[in-house]
Amino acid sequence: MRNIRLTIAYDGSNYVGWQVQPNGPSVQTAVEKAIQKLTGLKANVLSAGRTDSGVHALGQVASFQTESSIPCEGFRKALHKFLPDDIIVRDVREVPLDFHATFSAVQKRYRYVIHNCRTHNPFLRNYVWHFHQDLDSTAMHEAGQKLIGTHDFRSFESHWPNKATSVRTVKEVIVRRQKFCPLWLGEADQQPTAEEAGDFVWLEIVADGFLYNMVRAIVGTLVPVGRGRWNGDDIVRILTAMDRSEAGDTAPPNGLYLVHVDY
Amino acid sequence: MRNIRLTIAYDGSNYVGWQVQPNGPSVQTAVEKAIQKLTGLKANVLSAGRTDSGVHALGQVASFQTESSIPCEGFRKALHKFLPDDIIVRDVREVPLDFHATFSAVQKRYRYVIHNCRTHNPFLRNYVWHFHQDLDSTAMHEAGQKLIGTHDFRSFESHWPNKATSVRTVKEVIVRRQKFCPLWLGEADQQPTAEEAGDFVWLEIVADGFLYNMVRAIVGTLVPVGRGRWNGDDIVRILTAMDRSEAGDTAPPNGLYLVHVDY
Repeated sequence: MRNIRLTIAYDGSNYVGWQVQPNGPSVQTAVEKAIQKLTGLKANVLSAGRTDSGVHALGQVASFQTESSIPCEGFRKALHKFLPDDIIVRDVREVPLDFHATFSAVQKRYRYVIHNCRTHNPFLRNYVWHFHQDLDSTAMHEAGQKLIGTHDFRSFESHWPNKATSVRTVKEVIVRRQKFCPLWLGEADQQPTAEEAGDFVWLEIVADGFLYNMVRAIVGTLVPVGRGRWNGDDIVRILTAMDRSEAGDTAPPNGLYLVHVDY
Repeated sequence: MRNIRLTIAYDGSNYVGWQVQPNGPSVQTAVEKAIQKLTGLKANVLSAGRTDSGVHALGQVASFQTESSIPCEGFRKALHKFLPDDIIVRDVREVPLDFHATFSAVQKRYRYVIHNCRTHNPFLRNYVWHFHQDLDSTAMHEAGQKLIGTHDFRSFESHWPNKATSVRTVKEVIVRRQKFCPLWLGEADQQPTAEEAGDFVWLEIVADGFLYNMVRAIVGTLVPVGRGRWNGDDIVRILTAMDRSEAGDTAPPNGLYLVHVDY
């Protein structure tokens, strides 16, 4: 038996999310079907994180066990033939049998992209949250630093309790105005290094794990900071309230990207 | 009676093209419906050029006559409410009654974008032609200069004869490798000024008019030049043959953008 690890990018616009759902096509189903067509055998593909309907991935990680002797590079090339063109396998490698895409993950990086511009862009409607009022990205960045550390994040969790604990460790929060929307693979993997003049506000967040809708709730809470309605003290107040109704709205799914998973 | 001129951008992915067709939704129908909802009256909206299924526009121009007294800026804002989010009206102005979006056009600029990279990008599948073998954009640019001038372009016309004449005047052909795919409105209107290191090859072409599939046939003919199979002499040979079978294939629609119309 071999254990195969995949790094996958996908445009989540036309999916109900990563996980199999009764109400529409899932990325997991598409990947499992492609593996079955290639190897002739059903595979159960586990991922680092479920992504919701409309959420994208640049570096989702998935793993499955197989008896197939196909070399890794052969897997990568052949899977393309069986996958729809909104899903791509970026990397295939063989890993020890005890590697588990979900439970072996040490930390994940998500990105959220806001198109902060008066003009709606029809080409980006599935890839950004269009927000037309001016946002102060520097204020958002500074307030976001208050989230760093080990906290109970239930104020940012939809439908609490979902998991045994809502304590998570946020390691990094970066908010930067950028000139571009990160749609080019490879370049898109890079974190922004400095503020730029431009219409896009990127939020990058790294944590050991994320609660349900946590990134989107954080974005929906930092946007009022960018509007001057809240500041860093409000973020501390919301965090310590441990009450979802204290935080901002859940930002729409289409601006969200799972960028990278560390093991 | 007033004559209203619209500048429209749209993502053509989900449309059968500009013009009303029996087999699916058209951009024209969407715009006419939005005007009817706003003014209460049916409008016949004429455009600078039909775009085919899957072809995009950054600066399509359309015009219609109306008795409505709504000011131009009011039209622009209100049409947004009634248009789907893959169509946007960028500009509205009142023009003399003898202005006709189709017949008053003096020249048009189209752009074709090739993603010239070994890795298919799932986010760009509707916005570029993915071509994975290396292309020599400088050779394509040089050969493309042979198309400039007044010629019979029937070698680049699908289903000739479509129009009274297939003589057109091509004023400019620019092929440049670029770092980015031009999806940001405003910036996307700019022509590339120099070669860059990057994965995108843009072809810009200006002419007094275009035959059916002409830009896509020109792209499909310059790509073999970029591969070293043909050169500028072949372009002259193909042009003078006045035979569609001498030229290259018709490139796919999704890389094509109507950028600008001059009146």
